[in-house]
Amino acid sequence: MCELLGMSANVPTDICFSFSGLLERGGNTGPHKDGWGITFYEGKGCRTFKDPEPSCRSEIAKLVKAYPIKSVSVISHIRQGNRGRTCLENTHPFTRELWGREISYAHNGQLSNYKDLKTEYYKPVGNTDSELAFCWLLDNIRQKYPKKPSNMASVFRYAAKLADQLREKGVFNMLLTDGVFVLAYCSNNLHWITRRAPFGKATLIDADMVVDFQKETTPNDIVTVIATRPLTNDEQWNKIEPGESVLFKLGEKV
Amino acid sequence: MCELLGMSANVPTDICFSFSGLLERGGNTGPHKDGWGITFYEGKGCRTFKDPEPSCRSEIAKLVKAYPIKSVSVISHIRQGNRGRTCLENTHPFTRELWGREISYAHNGQLSNYKDLKTEYYKPVGNTDSELAFCWLLDNIRQKYPKKPSNMASVFRYAAKLADQLREKGVFNMLLTDGVFVLAYCSNNLHWITRRAPFGKATLIDADMVVDFQKETTPNDIVTVIATRPLTNDEQWNKIEPGESVLFKLGEKV
Repeated sequence: MCELLGMSANVPTDICFSFSGLLERGGNTGPHKDGWGITFYEGKGCRTFKDPEPSCRSEIAKLVKAYPIKSVSVISHIRQGNRGRTCLENTHPFTRELWGREISYAHNGQLSNYKDLKTEYYKPVGNTDSELAFCWLLDNIRQKYPKKPSNMASVFRYAAKLADQLREKGVFNMLLTDGVFVLAYCSNNLHWITRRAPFGKATLIDADMVVDFQKETTPNDIVTVIATRPLTNDEQWNKIEPGESVLFKLGEKV
Repeated sequence: MCELLGMSANVPTDICFSFSGLLERGGNTGPHKDGWGITFYEGKGCRTFKDPEPSCRSEIAKLVKAYPIKSVSVISHIRQGNRGRTCLENTHPFTRELWGREISYAHNGQLSNYKDLKTEYYKPVGNTDSELAFCWLLDNIRQKYPKKPSNMASVFRYAAKLADQLREKGVFNMLLTDGVFVLAYCSNNLHWITRRAPFGKATLIDADMVVDFQKETTPNDIVTVIATRPLTNDEQWNKIEPGESVLFKLGEKV
């Protein structure tokens, strides 16, 4: 199993605090030592930092933790490999272009009989069940929507229906984003919290770190964080039920 | 205009020395202040660091300069924008998946009448002539080779023919790689050098930095560096003639 982290916000926001908590699970407080990755959207573009090294001792992770990259949509993943060896091409998130948009994806779980997932447009580069499932999702979306629809929310609703089919093959927790929407699909473990004014303090579970969001935000900020397990111990996180999904657009649940 | 840097090597090699020279041109010794990017291949996977900030004051560039990522194929680009504004989605290199391989590309130059380049499979995310030309190249390659051919060199020969057509629209210097081959296509400015035993010393033109390659290499290493302009002043660089291309496979000219 792996751990997922996502963020959706109405103003470019850094994810340093939450990412610090996640990183500890990458070999320190958690067993997820088979690489990590994080994708930040800035405008229509995105950039991904990834490393097959355990996140708790990755030089690149240290930079990402210390350097506040501000983004409205972020997804991140730390890996405890099951299908596919530990190498760069098997490290999440995965990104593909569809209709001139960058679509990024990370998966937590494990699928069986996944090799019967056939794809035409998109082919996996590595050999994980996760990347093949992503290619299959995009192939199906592309067949249903040969051109970019004006209603992007409908694309994510359709992606959630496709995810139902993948969940029949095993455990399939997923984050999927185009940089505006973030879809959180739950197979067994996925939680979220929306922070908005009045902001308070929060304490990380995995690291000795407290943040006072009131000092870091303006009253209009709306920031949703999604994670496999709650990252803080003094806030109320929402659990997503198995087979359910929640779609966020720029911080707000839609 | 922009500056290109590429590397092709028979053993995973870091590019810190050459990249240090290139970075100086990103706002210090050169005017290329509209972002930079670098793509490293490790196995079938690749990772890209990019930043719309000038390379000479980018935190991420500092990390890449100091942290020796070892790779057999690297392409890099620093940008002085002409077509398309300065933002992440317009920052090179660009990468797309074809036949389950990551193909990466960077362009130096400027095209006219490029909007008549039509594409079907691949659509640009940003609005540069460069990315559209890349999508057009890949579209044509995909139409000619619906499946991955066993002879990948033929794909790059075909890409060079397509580049001839793009050169008719303006200036088109290009680096293109699948992680094994690196194609250097010259429109007006592109140079290369292959370093092999016996290794000597080299002095950067753009920074006060000397390297003794003998201390950094083994006798079997073969490392080719490709750059818009020679990066060192005490070695003999080869100039590629306009309209010519040179294909490298793991360090060797093929």
